[in-house]
Amino acid sequence: MAVNQMMGRQSVEFHDPPHIIGSASVVGPKEGEGPLGGEFDLIAPEAEFGEDTWEKAESTMQKEALQTAVGKAGLSPGQIRYLYGGDLLAQLTATFFGNEEAGVPMFGLYGACSTCGESLTLAAMAIAAGYADYTAALTSSHFGSAEKEFRFPLGYGNQRPLSATWTVTGSGAFVLAAKGGHVKITGVTPGKIVDMGIRDNMNMGACMAPAACDTIYQNMMDFNRQPQDYDRIITGDLGYVGQEILTDLLKEKGFDISGQHMDCGIEVYDREKQDTHAGGSGCGCSAVVLAAMVLPKLRQGIWKRVLFVPTGALLSKVSFNEGQTIPGIAHGVVLEHC
Amino acid sequence: MAVNQMMGRQSVEFHDPPHIIGSASVVGPKEGEGPLGGEFDLIAPEAEFGEDTWEKAESTMQKEALQTAVGKAGLSPGQIRYLYGGDLLAQLTATFFGNEEAGVPMFGLYGACSTCGESLTLAAMAIAAGYADYTAALTSSHFGSAEKEFRFPLGYGNQRPLSATWTVTGSGAFVLAAKGGHVKITGVTPGKIVDMGIRDNMNMGACMAPAACDTIYQNMMDFNRQPQDYDRIITGDLGYVGQEILTDLLKEKGFDISGQHMDCGIEVYDREKQDTHAGGSGCGCSAVVLAAMVLPKLRQGIWKRVLFVPTGALLSKVSFNEGQTIPGIAHGVVLEHC
Repeated sequence: MAVNQMMGRQSVEFHDPPHIIGSASVVGPKEGEGPLGGEFDLIAPEAEFGEDTWEKAESTMQKEALQTAVGKAGLSPGQIRYLYGGDLLAQLTATFFGNEEAGVPMFGLYGACSTCGESLTLAAMAIAAGYADYTAALTSSHFGSAEKEFRFPLGYGNQRPLSATWTVTGSGAFVLAAKGGHVKITGVTPGKIVDMGIRDNMNMGACMAPAACDTIYQNMMDFNRQPQDYDRIITGDLGYVGQEILTDLLKEKGFDISGQHMDCGIEVYDREKQDTHAGGSGCGCSAVVLAAMVLPKLRQGIWKRVLFVPTGALLSKVSFNEGQTIPGIAHGVVLEHC
Repeated sequence: MAVNQMMGRQSVEFHDPPHIIGSASVVGPKEGEGPLGGEFDLIAPEAEFGEDTWEKAESTMQKEALQTAVGKAGLSPGQIRYLYGGDLLAQLTATFFGNEEAGVPMFGLYGACSTCGESLTLAAMAIAAGYADYTAALTSSHFGSAEKEFRFPLGYGNQRPLSATWTVTGSGAFVLAAKGGHVKITGVTPGKIVDMGIRDNMNMGACMAPAACDTIYQNMMDFNRQPQDYDRIITGDLGYVGQEILTDLLKEKGFDISGQHMDCGIEVYDREKQDTHAGGSGCGCSAVVLAAMVLPKLRQGIWKRVLFVPTGALLSKVSFNEGQTIPGIAHGVVLEHC
């Protein structure tokens, strides 16, 4: 096998870049009413997905997303050798119960809303190393289960400040192989934990922007690139508040990404009509926008090369209530048309 | 680079097996009083590790374990390219706060008590593929934080049935490289989610034994081996109850492992004197027993080949209270003397 290349301090360039040969997005009704409504594979009529708890609803989303992506790749679930997946819930409740039936060896991952990047990175690494013919990356989030997990039960009806984001109810799945698609993963920049001492769990954008800055900066150093070498630099869920902080932070480091930057949390909802304040968030957010909007543009060659950077805020109810800060993490994945 | 080999349905054999070049175990006082007390690298005088919360105590354990393992490998933390780590807490509270300062790109993992196997698998895969010169695998659990996370606050003083295990307060860290150690990871068998419909969160051994059976069986099929091809087959934390179920289940499948089986949860505490009922558990359990007992025997060549199978019970407070079952997962790692 050809040699994969360590690049700079923390990146890898794949000699034979893995291809994304199938992808799918499954969302709830609110996401279906947003600007990307026409592009999702499946929009549920109600956020319960026919289940009696939010957690089971999220498991069902994951199941549907994986089945759809595997089907689009012309495969059956049994052909997936390893599955890399996660969600936002304690002990990955949605992921493990959603993927029991698939019967695929499974790596459970947690990187908060950056997990879509983490799962794509590991799934690509396995393909490029010859560990598997087919792997899959799968993540989800659900507004109902996430509010309950991190903030207040929905019935409490708490007020949300303008800096708060709205957790996307959605799941995205991606099937990878050595060849056969029109989008390839040419490199990855796994991220470090970055802590700027922020403690506001209603301002995730500010918590995550420094981590996004660190990973994007390192990606450009490691691959010796400039922002214009990418058609888009797409963060996961910084929202409007985090976007401003990110572009400012990167300017201080000598990179102006204002011409290339896009954020999945900004794309997924209509700012005027949908009342989601700072934008969308959750590890379903970057996943469904990747499947519904980013990959199609790469497939068609409208974009040639994109840096996809899902961002995560590292907190739990317990760490927050114990007065800990909210560090961030972001994983970079380089996607190219082929 | 030479080709790594997919083996059978779900295993990988490494052409150039990664070496474990440094390892460390850090435990609390109860573990220090157990049969392996003389073998741990660091025994804290009290389970608080000088911190004011159980979660911070667990973070401190991880920090100490990683530093010690990296030091024993003759490295500095900055030389570790990727860190693979996890714990049992919601949103990996202990792991992310414990590893902020290390400044190493980080993959957060959750596989319940199987996470030690998951982290070693991914850390080995990265080395064998040439993605990194050095990687590290790091896991922990803490009795105080785990009881609070999964069952009752300690102050509640609830009664524990005899089938219950005692969560190990401990953290184990492992540094991997292409060469330079006396133990190598020659293959891995990542596990599937196995659900036998058990719902008793005070009998984790019964929940996990079917998953251990599945992974051990698959390992032997994939590598075409018999139990006697291993000096030991070592599960993570089945305890006395789970051990019996595992040997029975494997006998039904035609494999008698009673001569080779060992369980970290059984080794870590003294059954007569320490009143831990069915044994020890937690993703710190398999990690500290690996570092303190299994690796030394492999290093010295007392054992030549061991199948190490950390086992995890996939539940959360929420899934349990919503009446869900408790599926299990187990990841197999083949360790050999060199």
